[in-house]
Amino acid sequence: MMAARANMTVGILGAGQLGLMLAESLSNLGGHVRMLDPNPQSPGALRTPFVTCASFEDENALRDFFAQCDRVTYEFEHIPTAALRRILEEPTQRKKLWPSVLVLENAQNRIAEKKALARVGAPLTPWTEINSLAELEEQSSVWLGNKRHGLLKTASGGYDGKGQWRLADAADWANALANLPDSARAFPMVLEEKCELETEISVIVGRHPTLGTFIFPAVENIHVNGILDTTLFPARLPYELCEKARAVAEKIADSWDVFGLLCVEFFVVRRNGEHALLVNEVAPRPHNSGHVTRRSMSRSQFDILAQILLDLPFVSQQVSPDRTWAMWNTLGDLWSSHSAAWPAELLAHSAVCEAMLYGKPGVRAGRKMGHVILSAPNHAALTKNIDHLRSTFTNKKGGHG
Amino acid sequence: MMAARANMTVGILGAGQLGLMLAESLSNLGGHVRMLDPNPQSPGALRTPFVTCASFEDENALRDFFAQCDRVTYEFEHIPTAALRRILEEPTQRKKLWPSVLVLENAQNRIAEKKALARVGAPLTPWTEINSLAELEEQSSVWLGNKRHGLLKTASGGYDGKGQWRLADAADWANALANLPDSARAFPMVLEEKCELETEISVIVGRHPTLGTFIFPAVENIHVNGILDTTLFPARLPYELCEKARAVAEKIADSWDVFGLLCVEFFVVRRNGEHALLVNEVAPRPHNSGHVTRRSMSRSQFDILAQILLDLPFVSQQVSPDRTWAMWNTLGDLWSSHSAAWPAELLAHSAVCEAMLYGKPGVRAGRKMGHVILSAPNHAALTKNIDHLRSTFTNKKGGHG
Repeated sequence: MMAARANMTVGILGAGQLGLMLAESLSNLGGHVRMLDPNPQSPGALRTPFVTCASFEDENALRDFFAQCDRVTYEFEHIPTAALRRILEEPTQRKKLWPSVLVLENAQNRIAEKKALARVGAPLTPWTEINSLAELEEQSSVWLGNKRHGLLKTASGGYDGKGQWRLADAADWANALANLPDSARAFPMVLEEKCELETEISVIVGRHPTLGTFIFPAVENIHVNGILDTTLFPARLPYELCEKARAVAEKIADSWDVFGLLCVEFFVVRRNGEHALLVNEVAPRPHNSGHVTRRSMSRSQFDILAQILLDLPFVSQQVSPDRTWAMWNTLGDLWSSHSAAWPAELLAHSAVCEAMLYGKPGVRAGRKMGHVILSAPNHAALTKNIDHLRSTFTNKKGGHG
Repeated sequence: MMAARANMTVGILGAGQLGLMLAESLSNLGGHVRMLDPNPQSPGALRTPFVTCASFEDENALRDFFAQCDRVTYEFEHIPTAALRRILEEPTQRKKLWPSVLVLENAQNRIAEKKALARVGAPLTPWTEINSLAELEEQSSVWLGNKRHGLLKTASGGYDGKGQWRLADAADWANALANLPDSARAFPMVLEEKCELETEISVIVGRHPTLGTFIFPAVENIHVNGILDTTLFPARLPYELCEKARAVAEKIADSWDVFGLLCVEFFVVRRNGEHALLVNEVAPRPHNSGHVTRRSMSRSQFDILAQILLDLPFVSQQVSPDRTWAMWNTLGDLWSSHSAAWPAELLAHSAVCEAMLYGKPGVRAGRKMGHVILSAPNHAALTKNIDHLRSTFTNKKGGHG
């Protein structure tokens, strides 16, 4: 038997639902877990005994946390890195953060991300860096003249469609130019071309410095109002295109030397009648679109990450299922009640394989309250089931915003 | 939408692995959980923030616990009921314990159990109540004369093969008669006929007073040294026999008015060339043989029990899988090391769908350290995989005792 180093302590920065599900996988492997999160009501704090409640900028708390852990990872990328960098300067701590602080910083800033992706040769949508209101004003005539549709995004801090402006016509531009200084935290910003999307897919890569790489199959993602609504597995796209996406994702993970998970989100567009892939963004952590792996694969994204963090060998391939799977993100918008509960019909539905509430106190529009994993013989049946189940929630109007 | 009463607090007496997995299902449904266990190092205590550490005989602690819970269940049946009964006498507490204290007491004592099973018409092995050493001595000549093989069991307190004596020949009887007073806690005992078994199966029934009944498919159980080693799903038996077992299990649960789960374990014997079923014993709680449902079914035994305890509607049927599944119980015997860790080969094996360590500190022979769930196209492949994986553990000699 190879020595399996499960007797390690892994720290997770963030105790949201992603941290909670990772903690579960780590514990099942015999690993010890610690988490740090400023929110005393986080899913991890409510459901595990592992959480230290502290700010991500509290350098002393962070330092103590690192000292207690053999390895540290993060479940979201919006963590200030100044304190982290100072801690990682110490020789004993230097190699503890997986993925590295460089990968984390690439994922925190759209400009750094796009430059790092471009260096690797990853296909990107046309984009421009915008450093001031004057530069933005300058672009307005160019883009309006060429009838290009733009998407203006803050370089950092935006997620789930927040910090984004659509620039389709003169009114959009006038509105952005008038209101931007207040609503955008700061320049620089990124002005991207808004492509006509066929659909979106994502690929999660798990990578260990010596134990190898596991590339999950591509899944298809349907967003509503900038937030993931449904993930379909397998994606409704040609096998070759999915394999191409997996190859691009693997190349990025390799080039960036990712230790842990990297989720690569792709736009699927038509170019001269052919499908083409454009990298939208990356996340060096478990990803919402990967929840579908909890039921459809024998190892979930959380299992693979846990095995990587504990230096435990993992599978090189998994059997693909015969059935079709979906992950449906259930946002606060679905409930008109004060607290989240599953509708009776959902609980009794035979297509539902997992219905997980994260235990977050209070229902709020846009808040991820839980997810549902469904299985059916084909995509059409899945979509029909989800449409039906959506109608059983108290808030019939569905999507927020 | 029907009102889903997930905003309830469910108490679990016992915080072992069964309690831990039930807590997970309850939390995923939005339920609140509390657990009580005397062991500060129980899986629940190490992995959840829900545990009060107290003796099951500490009436004040139990009373506080009941006061904090809307409903209380138990994850093992060896809980003294005197204090429980006093608490349940209070009008506000009377209906809180699910399954009822009567069901619990039936399951605690082999004599009460067999009498209650016989009243329902459940098929049993021939058995006799033994109240003293003199009565046992009297039986010895009868059984030896008739060349009947006996199995002597303590009426209460025995599980996993503990508190049992095989009585096959004169030496066995002489040994039992000479050594019994010291090793058996107390009479009464049960003397059962030891049947020639073809195999063993079990059926888990989930039952709610108003929301209906869910009967899991029969699974096949292979015991080694009196402890469950492997569960196979589906059982390698004719469909009609499995359906008959399900009907018997449902009848017992109905007659005993079980609110919660009831696992019924059956011996499968040959009578006149035909298969016949004999009820071995019952457990009114999640059962080790039901772990296989965590992966092979869309609702596990823990999910169904959680839905029952939270008054949430549950499925009336689940789709049967095309593949064959096994649950392999990994006892402390498998490790020669001080702490449990999964062998590298197991973690990387493509047939493994769940490998869960319970986090118990210290490896001990006979202690359930974790379980593995595997899937393969057929039974032969499963058995081969388990045999191979068994050989990758540090303690090559396998079974204990």
